[in-house]
Amino acid sequence: MQYQEVEGAREYVARLEHGRDWRGQIEEFAAEEGIDAAFFMGLGAVSDATLLFYDQDDKEYDSISFDEHFEMTPAIGNISLLDGNQFAHTHAVLSREDGSTVAGHLDTATTFAGELYVREFDTTLEREHDEPTDLDLWPL
Amino acid sequence: MQYQEVEGAREYVARLEHGRDWRGQIEEFAAEEGIDAAFFMGLGAVSDATLLFYDQDDKEYDSISFDEHFEMTPAIGNISLLDGNQFAHTHAVLSREDGSTVAGHLDTATTFAGELYVREFDTTLEREHDEPTDLDLWPL
Amino acid sequence: MQYQEVEGAREYVARLEHGRDWRGQIEEFAAEEGIDAAFFMGLGAVSDATLLFYDQDDKEYDSISFDEHFEMTPAIGNISLLDGNQFAHTHAVLSREDGSTVAGHLDTATTFAGELYVREFDTTLEREHDEPTDLDLWPL
Repeated sequence: MQYQEVEGAREYVARLEHGRDWRGQIEEFAAEEGIDAAFFMGLGAVSDATLLFYDQDDKEYDSISFDEHFEMTPAIGNISLLDGNQFAHTHAVLSREDGSTVAGHLDTATTFAGELYVREFDTTLEREHDEPTDLDLWPL
Repeated sequence: MQYQEVEGAREYVARLEHGRDWRGQIEEFAAEEGIDAAFFMGLGAVSDATLLFYDQDDKEYDSISFDEHFEMTPAIGNISLLDGNQFAHTHAVLSREDGSTVAGHLDTATTFAGELYVREFDTTLEREHDEPTDLDLWPL
Repeated sequence: MQYQEVEGAREYVARLEHGRDWRGQIEEFAAEEGIDAAFFMGLGAVSDATLLFYDQDDKEYDSISFDEHFEMTPAIGNISLLDGNQFAHTHAVLSREDGSTVAGHLDTATTFAGELYVREFDTTLEREHDEPTDLDLWPL
């Protein structure tokens, strides 16, 4: 495992805005605040969602969309730079009224309500292309 | 997104008590310690669970109960004040022996075992009624 | 609830190594760094997984294996000592291309990619046998 000891920097609690994209507003916040390295955890509810699944053979993301209301239980992710811009790598577990779940790499979801904790680190994490996985990963 | 930079305060590791309610004992701990703002993550197992799902149209919580044994994989939540008392907003993913899952906003669950990390912030978060969602949210 | 206030110590961001066991490399890292108390959260993808479910009646772990590709959405866990060695107690929610999920106590999983945040505490957590649950828990 490659790892880097980091110093904790700023910490935030946030309330996601009703009616706006879950991930998009995290990225907007991160750009406004100049956050180049962070992890976050959150919970809430969304009114639709598009999840991505990385095909490990074809090295491509497949997309699946759900036009349903879900609890966000939870969202876990991180913020780092991708092509110079703040990218919020976000995984989400979504649940329905009967408790049944779908989960995946969160692309888009319209926020109904959301609460977030963001832990920034005093470093810059910038994603670079990784040959074996064809993903953009941190060169730690 | 509305957000507030916060200062980290106390941190705790905890062991949830066998046979007692998962969320209730987090709230009791928070009241004992006077924790008015925190996020937490945890894992463990429970012997039953009642989950809530917020109906985004009717603006009411629907409840569903499961009289089963589950792994708690994981529980993510936060602590803030609601009507002056510590409230632990908790989302949980629960799994069965075959790996199948249910998830949602955790109301009650009898703890079999549980381990928690709590990160307090040096502020007070107090929930207030929010018109568009009819939920109690933080006025950040 | 039993709890202990802890002082935050080192923090790490990590990139899990492609092709190696998810939990094993966290434990190897923890042993290398001498981490005796920590919580972590992570996300990524794996190419197979074995999950455990603790049978609360028989007091034994049942195992179920999946020879599939999954997103890791997310992994939440902690590091403490078990029989003197670093043990990474890890719960995972895994998702498929159609969004469907399985979850549980993670035994093994071959990492495709993974990203981790580790928060160490300035204490030693050592697991001891607990009579009522027949599990190894922290004597906080």
